[in-house]
Amino acid sequence: MLGSTHGTLTTDSRPARVVACGERPAPAVHSSTAGPDSTSADLDVSGRPLHADVPDLDRFFRPESVAVVGASDAEGRPNTGITRQLMAWAERVGARIHPVHPTRESVFGLPCVPSVTDLPEQVDLAVLLVGDPLPVIEELAEAKVKFAVAFASGFAETGQEGAAAQARLAAAVERSGIRLLGPNTNLNAFEKFREDLEGPAIALITQSGHQGRPVFTLQELGIRLSHWAPTGNEADLETADFLSYFADQPEVGAIACYVEGLKDGRSFLLAADHAARRGVPVVAVKVGRTETGARMAASHTGKLTGADGVVDAAMRQFGVIRVDGLDELQDTAALLARARTPQAEGVVVYSISGGTGAHFSDLATEAGLSLPTLSEAKQAELHQWIPEYLNVANPVDNGGHPVGDWRGRKIIDAILDDPDVGVLICPITGPFPPMSDKLAQDLVDAAERTDKLVCVVWGSPVGTEDAYRSTLLGSSRVATFRTFANCITAVRAHLDHHRFTSGYHSPFADAPRSPSPSFRKAQALMRPGQQLSEHAAKQLLRAYGIRVPREQLVTSAAAAVRAAGLVGYPVVMKASGAQLGHKTELGLVKVGLTSASQVRDAYRELTDIARYEGIDLDGVLVCQMIEPGVEMVVGVTHDSLFGPTVTVGLGGVLVEVLQDAAVRVPPFGEDQARAMLTELRGRALLDGVRGRPPADVDALVEVVLRIQRMALELGDDLAELDINPLMVLPRGQGAVALDALAVCR
Amino acid sequence: MLGSTHGTLTTDSRPARVVACGERPAPAVHSSTAGPDSTSADLDVSGRPLHADVPDLDRFFRPESVAVVGASDAEGRPNTGITRQLMAWAERVGARIHPVHPTRESVFGLPCVPSVTDLPEQVDLAVLLVGDPLPVIEELAEAKVKFAVAFASGFAETGQEGAAAQARLAAAVERSGIRLLGPNTNLNAFEKFREDLEGPAIALITQSGHQGRPVFTLQELGIRLSHWAPTGNEADLETADFLSYFADQPEVGAIACYVEGLKDGRSFLLAADHAARRGVPVVAVKVGRTETGARMAASHTGKLTGADGVVDAAMRQFGVIRVDGLDELQDTAALLARARTPQAEGVVVYSISGGTGAHFSDLATEAGLSLPTLSEAKQAELHQWIPEYLNVANPVDNGGHPVGDWRGRKIIDAILDDPDVGVLICPITGPFPPMSDKLAQDLVDAAERTDKLVCVVWGSPVGTEDAYRSTLLGSSRVATFRTFANCITAVRAHLDHHRFTSGYHSPFADAPRSPSPSFRKAQALMRPGQQLSEHAAKQLLRAYGIRVPREQLVTSAAAAVRAAGLVGYPVVMKASGAQLGHKTELGLVKVGLTSASQVRDAYRELTDIARYEGIDLDGVLVCQMIEPGVEMVVGVTHDSLFGPTVTVGLGGVLVEVLQDAAVRVPPFGEDQARAMLTELRGRALLDGVRGRPPADVDALVEVVLRIQRMALELGDDLAELDINPLMVLPRGQGAVALDALAVCR
Repeated sequence: MLGSTHGTLTTDSRPARVVACGERPAPAVHSSTAGPDSTSADLDVSGRPLHADVPDLDRFFRPESVAVVGASDAEGRPNTGITRQLMAWAERVGARIHPVHPTRESVFGLPCVPSVTDLPEQVDLAVLLVGDPLPVIEELAEAKVKFAVAFASGFAETGQEGAAAQARLAAAVERSGIRLLGPNTNLNAFEKFREDLEGPAIALITQSGHQGRPVFTLQELGIRLSHWAPTGNEADLETADFLSYFADQPEVGAIACYVEGLKDGRSFLLAADHAARRGVPVVAVKVGRTETGARMAASHTGKLTGADGVVDAAMRQFGVIRVDGLDELQDTAALLARARTPQAEGVVVYSISGGTGAHFSDLATEAGLSLPTLSEAKQAELHQWIPEYLNVANPVDNGGHPVGDWRGRKIIDAILDDPDVGVLICPITGPFPPMSDKLAQDLVDAAERTDKLVCVVWGSPVGTEDAYRSTLLGSSRVATFRTFANCITAVRAHLDHHRFTSGYHSPFADAPRSPSPSFRKAQALMRPGQQLSEHAAKQLLRAYGIRVPREQLVTSAAAAVRAAGLVGYPVVMKASGAQLGHKTELGLVKVGLTSASQVRDAYRELTDIARYEGIDLDGVLVCQMIEPGVEMVVGVTHDSLFGPTVTVGLGGVLVEVLQDAAVRVPPFGEDQARAMLTELRGRALLDGVRGRPPADVDALVEVVLRIQRMALELGDDLAELDINPLMVLPRGQGAVALDALAVCR
Repeated sequence: MLGSTHGTLTTDSRPARVVACGERPAPAVHSSTAGPDSTSADLDVSGRPLHADVPDLDRFFRPESVAVVGASDAEGRPNTGITRQLMAWAERVGARIHPVHPTRESVFGLPCVPSVTDLPEQVDLAVLLVGDPLPVIEELAEAKVKFAVAFASGFAETGQEGAAAQARLAAAVERSGIRLLGPNTNLNAFEKFREDLEGPAIALITQSGHQGRPVFTLQELGIRLSHWAPTGNEADLETADFLSYFADQPEVGAIACYVEGLKDGRSFLLAADHAARRGVPVVAVKVGRTETGARMAASHTGKLTGADGVVDAAMRQFGVIRVDGLDELQDTAALLARARTPQAEGVVVYSISGGTGAHFSDLATEAGLSLPTLSEAKQAELHQWIPEYLNVANPVDNGGHPVGDWRGRKIIDAILDDPDVGVLICPITGPFPPMSDKLAQDLVDAAERTDKLVCVVWGSPVGTEDAYRSTLLGSSRVATFRTFANCITAVRAHLDHHRFTSGYHSPFADAPRSPSPSFRKAQALMRPGQQLSEHAAKQLLRAYGIRVPREQLVTSAAAAVRAAGLVGYPVVMKASGAQLGHKTELGLVKVGLTSASQVRDAYRELTDIARYEGIDLDGVLVCQMIEPGVEMVVGVTHDSLFGPTVTVGLGGVLVEVLQDAAVRVPPFGEDQARAMLTELRGRALLDGVRGRPPADVDALVEVVLRIQRMALELGDDLAELDINPLMVLPRGQGAVALDALAVCR
C-alpha cells in the first residue's frame, strides 16, 4: 500500500515556501461567503488557492435598487428597448430603478440623474448601456455600487487592442472592489423566468446568449430554471464564480454550462470541487474539441480553450459531466436537477415491443448501463399479466395488450418494487393512442408513488401528441426524452454522478501546502532555460525518491571500465549531453556489454559518433542493465489553462503511434492515478500477456504520485519532464526510470 | 501495381468447379426482374450467386385482387378489425377484395368463399389471418396466387419447435412458387400513406412494427413515404428482397431499414450492391452491438445477428449507412431521399451567433466535415452586409441584425454562390421570431433557387413554433433537423454516399468464377478435421504465391546441420507438429543460430523440451532468418452470417492487447484491401516510425488479396487460417509469412 495519496514523502512544516523563480501572485481577494473550511490565505505548495472563492451574488440576482446608466426612452434607440426590459424585470424582482443619463430629466416617467454619483440611494446593481464602461467604473466605486453589468463589445473578442482595453477595464474593476459581469454580455440574467414551476431548478451559465436559449426554453416544457448568467468576456466575474455561487443555492438542482473558454483553469476546478462537495451536478458543453472550434471560440469571447484532452480529464476529475450537444445539455441537466438519489444501479427496459426492447437494451448495454436479469420469482410475477411466450427477463416485453387495461399499472409497480431496480425506462417509439396514452398515464401515476427514476422516451418525431405534451411533460416525476441516445446519456450521467459524489474526497484537502525535503535537492539541480543532461534529469528523479539504474558519468575509456566494475556487468552505455535526444536512432546507446573490452570499444564508438555528428558530450553514462518489464512513459507538461499536468502512457509504439496516454491535472489522489492506468487502451500489458508476470502497478502509481509532487513543487520552473521508458518490473520488484529528459524554464 | 483486384493469379477456364467436400446448393430461383447483366446461374468460385435476385413485388404492393383468408365481421374478434383495415386499404389501392371463410356466406357485405380454391378469379395476394398458415399454402399454389402474407406468430421467435414449424412452412412455400411475407408480421404494408406529398420518398423495411412507426410518422412532418415492408420472420421474402426491389422503384429516394438479424449475409450484400449500383442510399439500424442486443433480437424474430464487427464492415463495404438511433435513421434517410447530388464537399456554417457558429463548427470538423475558409473576395462580399468586426471566414457570423432586413437573403445567396460550397448549414438554437422567422423564410426561398443543400437545425426543444412547423417543414428543399449531431451525421452520410457511389465498382463483377491453379495444389494439402503443421500451412501459402522463408523439415541433428547449410546461416529452428501452438512460450523456437554446433545443440534442446512436455513432433524446421520489418497478422475466419472473412492487423502487442485489426467480407477489391490498412489505429507503423523505412504496403495488400482468393476457393473446407507474423519488409522488398496456422473443417 502507498503511504499517502500524494506519495510517501515527508513534508516540511514550513508554512510557506520561497518560490525559486518567478512570482505567483495570490489571487485577488473579493468579498467571500465561503464556509469556515475556507481561508483565502490557504495556498498549496505552488502558491495557488485551495478553496473556491464564492462571491455573494444575492444582490446581483435580486437587487433592491438598480441604476441604468445610459437609459433612454427615445423612439428607435436600442437602449430604449433595453431600458424597457430592465424596468419590467425590476418590477418582477421588486427592485427600485434609477435611470442615469447626462441630459435627460426623466426616462419613461422615472426621474433621471446625470451621473451615478448623483443617485438618491446606494444601489446594488448598475447596468451600463454605455459604449465605454471604463470611465464609469470609478464613479460607481465612489457611489458604493456593489455590482455592474457591461454590455459593450469590442474587447478581447476583437483582438489585441481590444484585449488591452479589457485589461484596463479589469484593472479598474479590481481597484474599485465592484464585481463586474461582462463586457460583451447581454440581458439574459434579467429574462422573465416562469414562477409557477416547482421542484429543483436548473441554473444556467453561458458564454453566448443564443447558445443558452434552448436550455432557457425548457421552461416551456415544464422544467424550472432559477438563474441565467451570461458571462461574456469575464473581465471580472467568471464561469467559476457563478458555478460555486449556484451550487450554494437551495433551489438549484443542477448547473448547466455552455463554455467556450475558461479564464483560469484553477478557479474552474475549485468551483467544480465546491459543487462536488455539495453534491450539485454540473453539466457542460465545452467548445474546443478541434482547432477550428478553439479558434472560433477565441474570436468569440477572447478566451483560451486549453488542450482538449486536458480539459476533458480535468472535468472528469472533478465530476463535471461533459456533453457535446445542446440537446444533451438540456436533457442531462433536466434529469439531474430533478432525479432523486438512485436506490440501485439496475436499469429495466420496459416496452410494448420486443424490437424496441432489444434495440434499446443493445444501446444501453453498449453505453455501460447495467441491465440485471430479473429474478425467476419476479418474472413469474410479471407473467401473471404478460403472456408466457414473451420475454420478461429484462427487457420486459409486454406484447402491447396488457397496457390497455388494469394490468398495465400492475406491471410497472411490480418492476419498480424490485430492490435491484433503480431505473425504469419505457421507450415508446410510436404513438398508438389506445395503448400509448394509457401507458403514459400509468407511468406518470406510478412515478408519483416511488423515489425510483422513471424515464420515458417519446420517439414520435411530431411531438404534438397529448400523451407527450400534457401527460408526460405535465409530470415533474417522469423524465421524458425524445431519443434513445439522450435518455441513455442522461441516465448514465445520473448514476455516475451519484457514484462520484458519494465517494468524493476533495483532492484539494490533501494537497501539499509546503515543500518536501526533495524540493531543496531538486532546486539545486535546476538550470533555468536549459535542458538537463540525462544524468542530471535522473538525479532530479532520485531527489523525489524515484529509482534510477546505478550509473556513473565517465569521460575516459579507462574510467568507463572502472565504472562498469562498480555498476556490475552487463552494462548499458549511453552518450550523455545536455541537448541530446533520439540517442537510439543515432546509435548513441549500447546495451548488453559484458566485458571490459566491450566497454572500451563502446566508449570509443560512442565518442566517435558524437564527434562525427558534431554533438557536445559531457561524458558517457555507464549504467546498470535492468531486467525487462513493461515499458511506460511518465511525464509533466504545461497546459496554458491548467498549468502543470501529469501524463502516463504505455511506452514504445503504443505511445508513439497510438498516443495511448492518460493525463491528470494536479492535485489528484491515488484513486485518480490508478484510474489513469485503467484508461489506457493497452492496459492489459500491465496485467501480463503472453505468460508474462503482472507488472508492479503499485510502484508505477507511486512514481506517478511522486512526479505529481515534483510538478507541484517545481511549478513553472519545470517546463517539461519525461521518463521514457520507466521500466515497470514484475509485481513486488518496483519500477526504474531508464531514461529521462527535463527542461527548465 | 497489382495485376488484378483479386490478386495476380491466373485462373482456370473451366466453367465450374467440383466442390471438394460438402455441397453448396444453388439458390432457389424465383421470378426475377434483374437486368440483362444478371443470370441466376452466374456463381462465384465458392458456388454463391453474384447478382441480387430481384423479385417483382409490384402486384404485392399494388394488387388488383386480394383474398382475406380468415376474414371476419363478427363483433369483438381481432380478425374483424384487420378485415376492416384491409378493406379500406384495398379501396385506396383499387384492389378487389375476396373474403375467405369456411362457414360465412358474406363478410361486411362481400360474398365469402369457403376456400381459396373457390375464389372467383386468380388473386395477386392472399392475406392469411389463420393461426396455422401451412395447410393453406398448397391451396394457394393450386389457385395460382402470387403472394401471401402470414401474420401468425409462434415460429422461430419462440425457440426450436417454432423454428422447425417455420422450416416446414418455408419448404412448402418454396415448393409452391408463391412468395410469402412473414410469418410473425403485421399490417404495416397496408397502412394509409399520404398521397399529397411530392418528391423522392423513403421506402421502409422493418423487423418490428413499433420500431418503424417513427419513420412512418415522418409523413406528418412532410416527408414522403412510399412503402413499408414489415419482414417478420422472413420464412421466404427477406430484407434483401425488398431492398433490391425498392432500389428499382423510381419514386424511392432512400431506403430506411430497421434490422435485427439477417436471414442470409450474401443475399443482403447482393441487395446492397444492387442499390449501390443504382445510387440509391440505404440507411440502417442494425441491432447486435452487444451480446444482450443480439440475444434479444434472436428471441424477437429468431434470426442471427452475426459478429457485429463483421456486420459493420460488410455494410461499409457496400455503402450501407449504419446508424444507431431511430432518430438518426429518420433524419439521415429523409436527407438522403431528398438531397440532390452534391456539387462540392465544402460546408459553410452560417449563424446569427458567433457562439453557435463556433460550437457547430467544432462538432462538424470533429466529425470529418470539411469547412473551407472562404476566399478573401467572398469575405469582402459578405462584409458589405455584415459588420467588419464579425468573422465571416466560415463559420459566417452575421451578428443577428442583417437577417432582419434585405441583407439576410443577400448573404445566403452569396454563400451559396461560392463554387467551393456544396452545403449551407444554419443552426438556429433559439427562436427569436423577429429574426428567426425571417431567417427561416429566407433560407426556404434561397433553397428553392439552388441545387445545393440547405440545412437548418431548429434547436428549440419546444418545436411548435410557426417558423419550424410551417415555414421550414413546409419546404421540401430545406432539410430541417432538431439537433446539431443528427444534422452532422446526415450531411456526412450524404457526402460519403455520393463519394461512394460515384466511384463504385461492384466487387461481384470481378469475383472469381472458377478456381485458380493454386486451388488444386492447396486441395492436396488439406486434411479434413485437422490442424495442419506449420510446415504444411506454409505450403498452403506457397500454393497461393505467398512468400515463406526457405525452410526444411528435418528429423535428425545431422540433417539439421545440412539443412542450415542449404538454407543459409543464420537460421531459425522451430519444433514442428500438428497440434503445436504457443511455440515461443514453450521455448520451442531458437533464433539467430550461426554455426553447425549451435544448430546441433538447438536440435537436441528442442526435441528434449518436446519430449518433456509430451508433445508429438513431426520434426524440426530449419528456416531462413528474415530481416526485421513490420509484423502483421493476416487471417481467415468464418462468420455465421457471411461465411469466410479476411482479417488484417498489426502484429505483436497491437493485435493481442488492442485487437487492432480490420475485417472484410469477400469479395472485395484492392481499394478495400488498402482501406483495411487505413482503419488500423497503429497504421503509422507501416509508414515508418523512429526512422525506420516505410514498409512494403503493396506487398501486404497483395498478400491480403491472395488470402481472399484462398478463402473463396477453399470455402468452408478452411475453418481458420492465421499468418502470424507476416513480416512486411521495407518498400520494394516484399512480405514473408514467418509462421502460419491452418485448421481444416
